[in-house]
Amino acid sequence: MRFLHTADWHLGRIFNARSLLEDQRHLLDQLVGLVAQRKPDAVLIAGDVFDRAVPPPEAVALLSEVLSRIVIGLRTPVLMIAGNHDSGERLGFGAPLLAAGGLHLAGPAGQVATLRLADAHGPVDVIGLPYAEPAEVRALHALDDTPDHAESMRLQLDALRARPDKAARTVLVGHAFVMGGEGCDSERPLSVGGSGAIGAEVFAGFDYVALGHLHRPQTFAGGRVHYSGSLMKYSLSEVDQAKSVSLVELDGNGAVSIERIALEPLRALRILEGSLEDLLQRGAQDPRKEDYIHARLTDAGALLDPMSRLREVWPNALSIERLVLSQRGEGLTRRASTRQLAPAELFASFLREVADEDLDEARRAAFAEVLQTLGGERGAA
Amino acid sequence: MRFLHTADWHLGRIFNARSLLEDQRHLLDQLVGLVAQRKPDAVLIAGDVFDRAVPPPEAVALLSEVLSRIVIGLRTPVLMIAGNHDSGERLGFGAPLLAAGGLHLAGPAGQVATLRLADAHGPVDVIGLPYAEPAEVRALHALDDTPDHAESMRLQLDALRARPDKAARTVLVGHAFVMGGEGCDSERPLSVGGSGAIGAEVFAGFDYVALGHLHRPQTFAGGRVHYSGSLMKYSLSEVDQAKSVSLVELDGNGAVSIERIALEPLRALRILEGSLEDLLQRGAQDPRKEDYIHARLTDAGALLDPMSRLREVWPNALSIERLVLSQRGEGLTRRASTRQLAPAELFASFLREVADEDLDEARRAAFAEVLQTLGGERGAA
Repeated sequence: MRFLHTADWHLGRIFNARSLLEDQRHLLDQLVGLVAQRKPDAVLIAGDVFDRAVPPPEAVALLSEVLSRIVIGLRTPVLMIAGNHDSGERLGFGAPLLAAGGLHLAGPAGQVATLRLADAHGPVDVIGLPYAEPAEVRALHALDDTPDHAESMRLQLDALRARPDKAARTVLVGHAFVMGGEGCDSERPLSVGGSGAIGAEVFAGFDYVALGHLHRPQTFAGGRVHYSGSLMKYSLSEVDQAKSVSLVELDGNGAVSIERIALEPLRALRILEGSLEDLLQRGAQDPRKEDYIHARLTDAGALLDPMSRLREVWPNALSIERLVLSQRGEGLTRRASTRQLAPAELFASFLREVADEDLDEARRAAFAEVLQTLGGERGAA
Repeated sequence: MRFLHTADWHLGRIFNARSLLEDQRHLLDQLVGLVAQRKPDAVLIAGDVFDRAVPPPEAVALLSEVLSRIVIGLRTPVLMIAGNHDSGERLGFGAPLLAAGGLHLAGPAGQVATLRLADAHGPVDVIGLPYAEPAEVRALHALDDTPDHAESMRLQLDALRARPDKAARTVLVGHAFVMGGEGCDSERPLSVGGSGAIGAEVFAGFDYVALGHLHRPQTFAGGRVHYSGSLMKYSLSEVDQAKSVSLVELDGNGAVSIERIALEPLRALRILEGSLEDLLQRGAQDPRKEDYIHARLTDAGALLDPMSRLREVWPNALSIERLVLSQRGEGLTRRASTRQLAPAELFASFLREVADEDLDEARRAAFAEVLQTLGGERGAA
């Protein structure tokens, strides 16, 4: 029995004011190609399919198209659950109707999707458990208090374990933060002021647990609990990660082996460091000018519209970091809140940071004059 | 061949800050009951299923449930199109997958839904054409200019008429404003500064045209072009309308007969007129206290929080109209924009309208004093 396990597509995500839909389409085309080539028995999508509860209509259309290609075009069933970014109600629309066609959805908390498959060794039950806020679990189980994330998951899994056919191998598709898991900057924490992490041992009894939430591919419990990782890099902290989907083999005894298959992004995400002139010179020889570029500029002085200049070379340059500024900035914010500084002191700090120069007496007088003129105009307006 | 034709459900609509979902659920329960009882060959839903592009999740869940009950529970296919209130992309999610299960969706402009049925007299093709903005039709047909609504519809229908089986009887499900149709206050005009109306003759050649958009049930072209009307009353202008769904019989020769079947609302919409005290007294005997009440108050003087007093009797009282105010109000707004009046003149107008009294000298002085005190406080703050 073979599954293609993927998660955290975050369709419709905006990265530095830029839609990633074209990149996502490029990756999903490869994913559909993999399904055609490797012929898994089912595709499992472990939540955060969309980046937000109300995704842009283009993202809805893309998902609809991709799922149709897999389910109708390739006759491969899909089981998909809502993650913490999805609206369960919206994602779960038409679930009973779609199940008849081969798309098994678990949207709102409290609803599960089930898919029974079989191979020469007998049946395999795939169960999709959508992400549920602890407050929702409290309501569903009529609890007096809101449980923590670990207790929430325990309660939901206990309800699932009371299934009729204990002889079947069982695969769970879920969305959670497993304790010890390595996060990155693009995951939205499940609980305020904490990770909402749960121990991997809560999943005991399932032959394979296909998880979503953490964007880095990683494995727990000797391979039985696994994150496929996100479709693509969604933050600078992921620049060195290899993104992949997981092809999971479940043998007759329930033993698991996982193959990670890399997807080729349309544009790589790269961090370049140097002075602006240095980078622009290097850029002239760059064969991959379409890549997403984060520039760490080492220039100390003022720069005139550096982003426009970068984009003349790399049209998809994303962001700029001024290393001098960010190293000195810390000192300023520690010394005093900028709100508590007098205007001249604030400007002196600014000048020191940007130009590495002091606000001498002549400049201080000029600044005061400008400030007074502005104040006078404001008073007259 | 028998169809249940309905339209303009506007699920998730808010009426005077009040969700109508409970009312809509009550009506849709009856509609499902009708399908069970009268056993149509298909249910046709002619657009404006939701009230807005992004409906509340509860409305999405209600639609999902109702469609499942009809399609799965009663094994009756449904063909549903997007109207001008719907987001075609959102409504059309999973259309090819849902069609396999018996739910035929036409969401985005340019996509149609088709459903082939048959009876003893031969095949019947049902075609669902979603609402398309003229600008979308321009893009789809690569036109140089944006066509008007009539031309848009003509172009779209011409494309449909090139269908293979000309022998089949044909039913069109569409969303449009037919010229001469009677509108009401709850329809959103299809074009700015006009109705976007099209002549009924554009639909020539179809045996039956199941329309949505106009909220009053009405018929054109001798019964071949028909509006089922909305699920319920969505504005005061509909207070005297009988809302219904239409059971449509199409015989072997393509002749049409329509039966309008009334749905019983959970709460009636009623307009009551009289003084506040008068209404409250009448309300004490009212057996239908849960109804939606619009009160036209004839009182001339000031009233202390009349809505709260009305809601003590009718908890779902919706709105209040002051007949004295609304009759006089016209005069004031015609005379001068309130923004151009000095505060004392504005207050004099207000006093005249509310209390039917003049701002005499003593009052004028008191008003000036209050105004000055307020101005002084504001200056000091």
